Amino acid sequence: MTATEGRAETALADAIGTRDAAAFVHVGDRTNATLRYLAGPALADRPSAYVRTATGERVLCPPPGAASAVRETFDGTVVSAGSLGVSAAGERAAAALDARDATGTVLTTAAVPHAAVLYLERAGYDVASTDALTEARALKTDAEIKRLRAVQTAATTGVARTETLLAEASRRDDGTLVHGGEPLTTELLRHEVNAALARAGVDPAGNTLVAAGTAWHDPAFANDTPIAAGDPVLVDLAPRDALGYHGRLARTFVVDTDGGWDRRAHLAVTRAREAGLAELDPGTSASRVHEEAAAEIVAYGFDAVGEARTDGVHALGHGVGLARREAPWLTNADELEPGNVVVLAPTVFDAAEGGGVRVADLAVVTAEGYDLLAEYATSLSPSADGSR
Amino acid sequence: MTATEGRAETALADAIGTRDAAAFVHVGDRTNATLRYLAGPALADRPSAYVRTATGERVLCPPPGAASAVRETFDGTVVSAGSLGVSAAGERAAAALDARDATGTVLTTAAVPHAAVLYLERAGYDVASTDALTEARALKTDAEIKRLRAVQTAATTGVARTETLLAEASRRDDGTLVHGGEPLTTELLRHEVNAALARAGVDPAGNTLVAAGTAWHDPAFANDTPIAAGDPVLVDLAPRDALGYHGRLARTFVVDTDGGWDRRAHLAVTRAREAGLAELDPGTSASRVHEEAAAEIVAYGFDAVGEARTDGVHALGHGVGLARREAPWLTNADELEPGNVVVLAPTVFDAAEGGGVRVADLAVVTAEGYDLLAEYATSLSPSADGSR
Repeated sequence: MTATEGRAETALADAIGTRDAAAFVHVGDRTNATLRYLAGPALADRPSAYVRTATGERVLCPPPGAASAVRETFDGTVVSAGSLGVSAAGERAAAALDARDATGTVLTTAAVPHAAVLYLERAGYDVASTDALTEARALKTDAEIKRLRAVQTAATTGVARTETLLAEASRRDDGTLVHGGEPLTTELLRHEVNAALARAGVDPAGNTLVAAGTAWHDPAFANDTPIAAGDPVLVDLAPRDALGYHGRLARTFVVDTDGGWDRRAHLAVTRAREAGLAELDPGTSASRVHEEAAAEIVAYGFDAVGEARTDGVHALGHGVGLARREAPWLTNADELEPGNVVVLAPTVFDAAEGGGVRVADLAVVTAEGYDLLAEYATSLSPSADGSR
Repeated sequence: MTATEGRAETALADAIGTRDAAAFVHVGDRTNATLRYLAGPALADRPSAYVRTATGERVLCPPPGAASAVRETFDGTVVSAGSLGVSAAGERAAAALDARDATGTVLTTAAVPHAAVLYLERAGYDVASTDALTEARALKTDAEIKRLRAVQTAATTGVARTETLLAEASRRDDGTLVHGGEPLTTELLRHEVNAALARAGVDPAGNTLVAAGTAWHDPAFANDTPIAAGDPVLVDLAPRDALGYHGRLARTFVVDTDGGWDRRAHLAVTRAREAGLAELDPGTSASRVHEEAAAEIVAYGFDAVGEARTDGVHALGHGVGLARREAPWLTNADELEPGNVVVLAPTVFDAAEGGGVRVADLAVVTAEGYDLLAEYATSLSPSADGSR
């Protein structure tokens, strides 16, 4: 049993005991963070069912053809689909429970596919939700922190690549940037950044955001408009490693700043970063981290962060792990604990001023305060050696 | 409305009419294939709810902070989370239905999160499943085929990179390969292949499988064992473009084949490929494609394909699109139609013989037969110019 499987086991034993349930069931494929947490990496890309019984048995029901591969890494019981004679994962879970004479309540997660619940209900089980795993996942093991550190270190190579390309670019008469004779575009930067991530052994995971000026929402929006020397260029990365752990690193660069709005915005977000990081301490309420960082941004005369159009930031940060976003949430008052891994992503966006500015870093809460999972300078001007 | 939204609209209007339902509801984030199909690319990375009412209104309820970004590309109604005052996507869907005085049955998909169904049921709606969208998605529009062609063309650069590195490698006395003075490993190949995909503008999507010898299951299993000159090396790619469309291309190379098992296995899978492709024709039953290809493999004296340990192949192929696997399924007897896009992935695996051999290609069914979405040679020996 791996370290995460051990934590999951404790959390599930607790939840099953407290609710007097017969089992816990989850269904998902290898992209599912909960299932990765429960059963490790050797999952198929079609849905598997995971069953943990009240008696402590851990059962994995992979899809047809996948049982022998799964047996090599999962140390619980593996039930081959063929032996069950059913093809839907929820049906396989119900069959595995029936084979163990289970009755009564089965716990599952809120995100389990509805069809799986229907199979369990049709088989006579009462289904109830538990968030026991969400809570367990918020506290990382040392092995998990090591992986997060490695993926975050890989992320720095992507930011460094952006910075180098911007620093090496020259400016045309119309104010746009060229690199190696080609117009420098967010689409070109996205390709180069993702290639750097791939070389460093992590997957861009469709999360790479390279934005210039006001085109600032979604990875799909990188485009072939030449970047202007005065545009704030955001590179915001959340790569994923082979086991599913995510990094998160963002920096904003301006090749030729006029020292006005973008510099003030950058000062606001870097001060917000410092203020938020300073609050990362066991016992501090998670929302206080958000509040202290947001207060800095407001003190610089900018809007409360992330209420703007920027996708995904209604708080200044959140937990990161097997999911890109997970507990702890900086929107609630839960106390931080050693082992929480959070991203702080202070952001200012103003379409009228021509763009947005964000820095984002990943830190682990320690007994003494916090530790950044990778270091990367926060300068607004790009330097050719990638700020490192 | 985009072309896929138009098809989705027709399918949903039909399903809602036939079932006398009040609406169709789905919940997911921007990684969700169904939601991408319904609402295009500008989705947040936290869950949105999509509602299509019986009166024909298309409503998107994005998460807090994401409404203005979504408004730029979604031409239906966008309801901001703030105006609903609720944070769970399922609750937002229920609130949007309530605001439209909907009553009765709400259709959804089998894969919708269970929590969303609970919100709808608590709000008084009867929830039922429909597979109308699954059927619609199996028939690609011309715009979708164009995107699939582009991502498949990008995939060829990844296979070509593998082939070049293998062809350039030299052999040490112990039979293992070195490239540029470094031992050639599956981990190194995976990094290089993913970098090539990223440069070509597509995301490896965590799907890149580079396997040598018998280590042959999961992207997580690339390792740092030096590849031997006699190992069959599989490169199997399913990259994803910025809108979520997948390619699928696999080739197997042996640097120094002894002309025995691996050559026979390779002959079997390439003949199976030809036999399967030849069956791609409107009106042919999908399972016949599998059967004809599998028969070739059996004729060469190998086991029925994909019943072995290789993950994910219980049929020789399936549809590909916004999901890596989707309809049409080559396990059932549905008739193929022009616009179906399928991967054919004949495979032989034998641990005793030291590995596996697979080729996989993506083809669209046309009025006249089929068309490969990208061409790539099928030779077993790698050539330095990447076989193209």
